[in-house]
Amino acid sequence: MLYDELNSNIDYSRSNLRWDGWGAYSEDFLLKDHVVEILDHLVELWNLPKFPKTPGKKWEDLSVRKIRLTEKELLELEKICGKEFVKTDNYERIFHSAGKSYYDVLRIRNDFLKEYVDVVCYPQNETQIIQILKFCNSKKIAVIPFGGGSSVVGGVEALKNKDQKAILSLDLTKLNQLLELDMQSRTATFQAGIYGPKLEKILNDKGYTLGHFPQSFEYSTLGGWVAARSSGQQSSKYGRIDKILNSLKVITCTGEIYTWKLPPSAMGPDLNQILAGSEGILGIITQVTVKIHPLPQARSYFGFLFPSFERGIEFIREANLKGLKLSMMRLSDEDETELFQILSKIGKQETWKSKIKDKIIQKVLEWNGIGNTKAFMITGVDASYLEIDEVVPKAKYLAEKYNGFYAGTKPGKNWLRSRFNMPFLRNYFLENGVGVDTLETSITYDRILKLHEHVKEKIKSSLKYCDVMCHVSHSYHEGASLYFTIIFPLDLQNPIEQWQVMKRSATEAILEVGGSVSHHHGIGIDHKEWYLKTLSDSSKEGLLALKKTWDPKSILNPGKLLP
Amino acid sequence: MLYDELNSNIDYSRSNLRWDGWGAYSEDFLLKDHVVEILDHLVELWNLPKFPKTPGKKWEDLSVRKIRLTEKELLELEKICGKEFVKTDNYERIFHSAGKSYYDVLRIRNDFLKEYVDVVCYPQNETQIIQILKFCNSKKIAVIPFGGGSSVVGGVEALKNKDQKAILSLDLTKLNQLLELDMQSRTATFQAGIYGPKLEKILNDKGYTLGHFPQSFEYSTLGGWVAARSSGQQSSKYGRIDKILNSLKVITCTGEIYTWKLPPSAMGPDLNQILAGSEGILGIITQVTVKIHPLPQARSYFGFLFPSFERGIEFIREANLKGLKLSMMRLSDEDETELFQILSKIGKQETWKSKIKDKIIQKVLEWNGIGNTKAFMITGVDASYLEIDEVVPKAKYLAEKYNGFYAGTKPGKNWLRSRFNMPFLRNYFLENGVGVDTLETSITYDRILKLHEHVKEKIKSSLKYCDVMCHVSHSYHEGASLYFTIIFPLDLQNPIEQWQVMKRSATEAILEVGGSVSHHHGIGIDHKEWYLKTLSDSSKEGLLALKKTWDPKSILNPGKLLP
Repeated sequence: MLYDELNSNIDYSRSNLRWDGWGAYSEDFLLKDHVVEILDHLVELWNLPKFPKTPGKKWEDLSVRKIRLTEKELLELEKICGKEFVKTDNYERIFHSAGKSYYDVLRIRNDFLKEYVDVVCYPQNETQIIQILKFCNSKKIAVIPFGGGSSVVGGVEALKNKDQKAILSLDLTKLNQLLELDMQSRTATFQAGIYGPKLEKILNDKGYTLGHFPQSFEYSTLGGWVAARSSGQQSSKYGRIDKILNSLKVITCTGEIYTWKLPPSAMGPDLNQILAGSEGILGIITQVTVKIHPLPQARSYFGFLFPSFERGIEFIREANLKGLKLSMMRLSDEDETELFQILSKIGKQETWKSKIKDKIIQKVLEWNGIGNTKAFMITGVDASYLEIDEVVPKAKYLAEKYNGFYAGTKPGKNWLRSRFNMPFLRNYFLENGVGVDTLETSITYDRILKLHEHVKEKIKSSLKYCDVMCHVSHSYHEGASLYFTIIFPLDLQNPIEQWQVMKRSATEAILEVGGSVSHHHGIGIDHKEWYLKTLSDSSKEGLLALKKTWDPKSILNPGKLLP
Repeated sequence: MLYDELNSNIDYSRSNLRWDGWGAYSEDFLLKDHVVEILDHLVELWNLPKFPKTPGKKWEDLSVRKIRLTEKELLELEKICGKEFVKTDNYERIFHSAGKSYYDVLRIRNDFLKEYVDVVCYPQNETQIIQILKFCNSKKIAVIPFGGGSSVVGGVEALKNKDQKAILSLDLTKLNQLLELDMQSRTATFQAGIYGPKLEKILNDKGYTLGHFPQSFEYSTLGGWVAARSSGQQSSKYGRIDKILNSLKVITCTGEIYTWKLPPSAMGPDLNQILAGSEGILGIITQVTVKIHPLPQARSYFGFLFPSFERGIEFIREANLKGLKLSMMRLSDEDETELFQILSKIGKQETWKSKIKDKIIQKVLEWNGIGNTKAFMITGVDASYLEIDEVVPKAKYLAEKYNGFYAGTKPGKNWLRSRFNMPFLRNYFLENGVGVDTLETSITYDRILKLHEHVKEKIKSSLKYCDVMCHVSHSYHEGASLYFTIIFPLDLQNPIEQWQVMKRSATEAILEVGGSVSHHHGIGIDHKEWYLKTLSDSSKEGLLALKKTWDPKSILNPGKLLP
């Protein structure tokens, strides 16, 4: 069965989800038995003594502040949503008070978080949302829309404006139904709170797919994808969510916005593209109509080794130029390739046979012009057998032009199996004195190598010890995304400042070359300062005018995106 | 030479362009020698006496109102733009006071137009635009941005608000330079006032193409395309202008908006897609960065005959589903096919040979399941020879599935030669008692046939005599556009009312089925009433808030798009 790696059995009860790390308690890092070896490798890399254990607090011990709503107010909310859908217990409040960024997790597990949501509401229909917004407007309560809560840019952090008395987390995951499936037009309309795996399961069972697989897929929702302009791993085939989006319905504090199910039109400014990326500050996305595709017959994923990151990018650029129908091109730079090589050997005993095999591989690569440094690419096709047979030879032929060496389907299969799993490794790192963060940007081809070099350099100069890796994961006509992973030993004295200095260096380096502040993580709190720098005064004023119109009392997701 | 039909020698001096019809005086309808036969066919079709001659007025005889700017004010404008770039002669004023819709031309040639622009300015740089806007804001003068002036929805009509004393036409065609060509990222930045043929010529000479060929191509500008969300004939390959658009610069009354040259990103609401389709009411588009493509090696255009419009649409739907790389699919319904068959015989003598040939063709078609009614499609590929060899057989194979009969490359060649020429026929119709209008919509596949039928029925019931034809010209994942052409004998007593009744019937019929108010013509004045019906109150309020922010005194293009 295609997509058999999609886990649609996750229990999303909040008590079953980690508050201080990634994912459900029932799920874990696939290589968890080898974490020690990974840590040993890092110790060796940096030539440091063994990392200290750095356990976080228990959730019961966090200094969660007193609820700032009165009994009467809570009763009013219960009247709107139903008693069982209004939660005030500490686990619910903690789970809903931050997203899943390194910065979030670092703070919450060490009890550094200052603000907590006061109450969590789970509306089951749009009328309840309208009533909650009315209530919160009248009571000066901040409202934070919450889907999977997987934001890694502070998009759902508990924040309120000074004039607000409390914070309500509006958990939308009870709005999770398919509303319409239009097989003629190949569109489907869902309620926005549906999780990735459930949405795919519904479509797969009917022979369709959305094809949108961000790394957060298992723990994020359709509404969140649209609100944050997410991008799925197969974006080369299916497009980003803002392209997949056909139309939507949004509840604002002053009314409703809906766009019609239509193909493209010339009907004025595109409201869909105003709401996509609005990160919950303009309204609550309640329904989304998306383009869907017949479930592909099969897929084929495989690897190429290029002699350099640069050559690999040339391949990507030309594949886009030629319209080569690859569903994904994921190209690691030399540093990331090296780490993956090391990871791939973890847990495997070296024998004389494996040594000889390695030697032979090395020789073959040398004959093909690939020396010690190399850039590895995972690429592949989701399509009919016929199309796969057409595209794969073309990809191989193009790779040859850039000295790409075909590395078979095994790396592709490995990647597919573990493609949503990497975030679980961070849970272990944080327990063991190691920090890890990721950040991403997009830039046109003319400046992509310059940006790659500049950002790595600036990150390295901001941290005493670190490993900085990068890959291209999404590519387009005019440019591509760059995704950086930074691993470093935790500064036990000043872990927050350590991160802030690194983040500032990296983001400033991105802006110095002219890259986007974010390619698919979004803006939230973490990128706001720099995002605002990319906007002219007029642009800012326009966006603020929308905010003022749709959320006049500024109760929606305070502190995110706009000043 | 590819694109040798692109006429880049048109003289765009306003005195060389028709004020009461389509195009330059140096250009004409290719079949002009056969207009009489076309008219005869219509007379026969409707069983009417010969149409009367209906000559329009001379431009010198129009009741152009007195200029409402003082001498001093005109001098101030001359100080800003330079004396020779401020025009107040009547020909310039008349040319800039209306677009090119049937309704526009009907009114202006009969001296029915009530309002005229008072002055035409041709700024040569952005500083001058800023100064003009400042001047007009302080003097309460309406400003109508003007590119090619080819709007067919009242997008450039001379209108002002009650509190405004005069109207200035801001002609942007002196801003017509290439600013940057980025071959790495395949983007080009142009000043917005550049005409289609000049833009293509610049790119073609360097081995590139924009690939954006709306029917107005020869008489419209890049800025106008973006402002009105236009669509080119090869949109299946190159996309609509809003997809081709990478970034832009806009001068508002309160500042500047610019977006960065970047691939897609997650940086909040998409400002590009707010400005695309803004029809000059939010600001003046001065620079546009677009995606460009290497000039294709060749092209192959050919015809298919389907047994019905429905079968042809099924082909289009599946071609989109399969990602078949056709650059265009232009499918005429049965009525349009019939008219084209008649037009194709005009000017050709019937001989015993041609009669036998026709008989044979008819027999062959019958054997292939195609009877008396048929739907003709022009389709084709702009690509490398290799790709053409790949795509054409696939298209033929798919057409067979829907009983499409391959009609060879001759119709394709004919279409390519005359693809920008049809609007010239209207010039003759209007002189000879015949009205002709076009209107278009887009809709998802589930409702496309219903819309087609309903709109034709409603148009027919609104006119005593008429011929209503339709074609699909742009298609997408989820639906397609429908383009209707309506030909009717002019009601000499009430030509305006005749048109208004028809337009209302057609547009209401479109909305009854849920189609878009416009697929690529835009909103302007003519579609405003119905466009506003498609927006919720919240949506309207949001757009008005942008207007208020960027054009607080509402001087920009009054009366268009928004209330």
